[in-house]
Amino acid sequence: MTYPNRSTPFPYSLQAMSATARAGVLSTPHGEIPTPVFMPVGTRATVKALAPRDLVELDARIVLANTYHLHLRPGAEIVAEAGGLHSFMQWQRPILTDSGGFQVFSLANRRVVTADGVRFRSHIDGSEHLFTPETVMRIQGQLGADIVMAFDECAPYPVEKEYVRSAAERTHAWAERCLAAHQQPDQALFGIVQGGVWPDLRRWSAEHLAALDLPGYAIGGLSVGEEKALMREALEAVMPHLPTGKPRYLMGVGAPEDLLNGIEVGIDMFDCVLPTRNARNGSLLVSDGRLNIRNGQYARDFAPVEAGCDCYTCRTFMRAYLHHLFRTEELLAYTLATIHNLRFLVRLVEGARAAILQNRYAEYKGAFLDRYHPTDPDARARNHEALRAGRRARDRLIT
Amino acid sequence: MTYPNRSTPFPYSLQAMSATARAGVLSTPHGEIPTPVFMPVGTRATVKALAPRDLVELDARIVLANTYHLHLRPGAEIVAEAGGLHSFMQWQRPILTDSGGFQVFSLANRRVVTADGVRFRSHIDGSEHLFTPETVMRIQGQLGADIVMAFDECAPYPVEKEYVRSAAERTHAWAERCLAAHQQPDQALFGIVQGGVWPDLRRWSAEHLAALDLPGYAIGGLSVGEEKALMREALEAVMPHLPTGKPRYLMGVGAPEDLLNGIEVGIDMFDCVLPTRNARNGSLLVSDGRLNIRNGQYARDFAPVEAGCDCYTCRTFMRAYLHHLFRTEELLAYTLATIHNLRFLVRLVEGARAAILQNRYAEYKGAFLDRYHPTDPDARARNHEALRAGRRARDRLIT
Repeated sequence: MTYPNRSTPFPYSLQAMSATARAGVLSTPHGEIPTPVFMPVGTRATVKALAPRDLVELDARIVLANTYHLHLRPGAEIVAEAGGLHSFMQWQRPILTDSGGFQVFSLANRRVVTADGVRFRSHIDGSEHLFTPETVMRIQGQLGADIVMAFDECAPYPVEKEYVRSAAERTHAWAERCLAAHQQPDQALFGIVQGGVWPDLRRWSAEHLAALDLPGYAIGGLSVGEEKALMREALEAVMPHLPTGKPRYLMGVGAPEDLLNGIEVGIDMFDCVLPTRNARNGSLLVSDGRLNIRNGQYARDFAPVEAGCDCYTCRTFMRAYLHHLFRTEELLAYTLATIHNLRFLVRLVEGARAAILQNRYAEYKGAFLDRYHPTDPDARARNHEALRAGRRARDRLIT
Repeated sequence: MTYPNRSTPFPYSLQAMSATARAGVLSTPHGEIPTPVFMPVGTRATVKALAPRDLVELDARIVLANTYHLHLRPGAEIVAEAGGLHSFMQWQRPILTDSGGFQVFSLANRRVVTADGVRFRSHIDGSEHLFTPETVMRIQGQLGADIVMAFDECAPYPVEKEYVRSAAERTHAWAERCLAAHQQPDQALFGIVQGGVWPDLRRWSAEHLAALDLPGYAIGGLSVGEEKALMREALEAVMPHLPTGKPRYLMGVGAPEDLLNGIEVGIDMFDCVLPTRNARNGSLLVSDGRLNIRNGQYARDFAPVEAGCDCYTCRTFMRAYLHHLFRTEELLAYTLATIHNLRFLVRLVEGARAAILQNRYAEYKGAFLDRYHPTDPDARARNHEALRAGRRARDRLIT
């Protein structure tokens, strides 16, 4: 069941399916990525609070970095002079760079959209910059990730359908310009399907991009505040129209239940800042749901965050110590919490992959969700509200 | 040349001398400490930004923690319930706890000194506490370090000689009460010599404490802003009056040139927050002196912080990457810089020990200082001024 990829040296091999869930391997110049895979986010060429060796230890197979942030600081030229992102951040496994579309459109009153691209002012110093499909491809070429993303517009939510349609049209036109500007055969260019929560727009966007025969496809514009049922509907509208021989990447999704739902419908790749950001706020993932280690009840709790967890944090420290580190705002708190949350998700997805290979994915998902109580809807709504509010705030851009 | 220690199971073995510089081994319930030794400071049961495995990797042989800070948060009872500091912070090598004397006297207008002890208000929540020699010994017993310090008064600088004398008298009386209250044979109680910059007071204080036959002696109240010549004079007044068969610990000293000077006159142990605090400000120790990695000149510098340095940071990353992490305030910056500065000092002292064993210490010191340009006196004065000012500020207590 291997589908050789005609357009790049990034063959994706589909190894097994369990209903519509897929297990595969994506090959890149920096090694193979077993899928499904969760990709930790290292916006500014560092997964916050972790050293690369921590990421190898918890077995992250690929990390993200961000074009917008790295363009502003330190600048893509410096990264290129350093030998590219792998050398700069000393991460030898694959890297994916997001195109910066999400970030520049988030700048609201600091940006002007034209047919050519987006002119924006830096959130750091107000300096003016222009992102076009061509400049974004050039910057990503300098950064040197294995996988680069097309420049796209992620429409906000909620918003008029007509706006979502025009954003998707822009995204399609820009994807074609990205493909035309794409010159580095050692980088795979992924397209991004948009279309908001409208199944017809999603289908149309998927078909349009599939025709470009790109080596992979992302689904953007979900997990931006819409209800879970709408996300599911949009996903189901997209999936039949993406080629089965290419990896599918659901952008910005990282809650455990969302990962399992995404894998179920055939998603191969995920990324999200929430597991790492939540970790820095003391919110830790455990099999029952989440716990906030800052709560007073953990002050005298001498058990590990989760018994049986194989991460460095749980193998080594007790909850009372993490509680103390968080209460005293010690830097080690953020490292230990991040290690745990990332390992939790990486292991969850490793387990999903093993279950797919044994054709018992539904059972795996059911067993996990029987025990796991996701954040309640109110907390989720507050979370999304905070994210939306944050988009408008300068400091939230730095994620 | 072994001097069996009569009062505790903490034998100190003097292995070699090179002029007055000493190489030895101090045995503790958590293993042997080759001396001279630099002890990283982990005030609140964590060396800021590092995990214990980082400390093992850079070969820290013993770390400090602080009685005042741990008494306030999380409380010594919780540490005791966790099995003591070694278990709480998961550090299997020796630990030394400072008595909190320095901190409570720094509280200035938040404390009242009586013959019994010091009544003070917490810098965190204003709650009232009483430290006496007896309570400090009880708290340190609960914390469970290998080496505990007598409750002392570190007189400020500059101050009237008469005040320094009365502070030393209090320190002597309290040392006797600490010894009387000392009950745990697995903890070595060190006395603290005071006396400011007055050689006669220093001699008197050393003689007084030596008569108590404690398993080790610290020299406090130096490196608090006095000129280097005065520190040297005070040290030279003390050394002949301390027993040669016991370790000598110079408190709060950590600049490379001060370490080498201290070792030269026969000091065995050092601690200081500056190498770690400076690291978090981007000030990195190199053989030539110091560099501030935040400076623009390092933005395109693709060399390691110091070529040939065996620390994880220098083995792995380039200056341009550290510069980027500092400029973007990424947490990894603090970890990588701290690893480097601590490894630099640990290696400096390892080299001093090897040189003493070969009876060529003067040569070792000379070769290092020929190349190393310590911070200029102006910068040093500003540094001390900042430290003094900081003592009065709440947030500086958290060090």
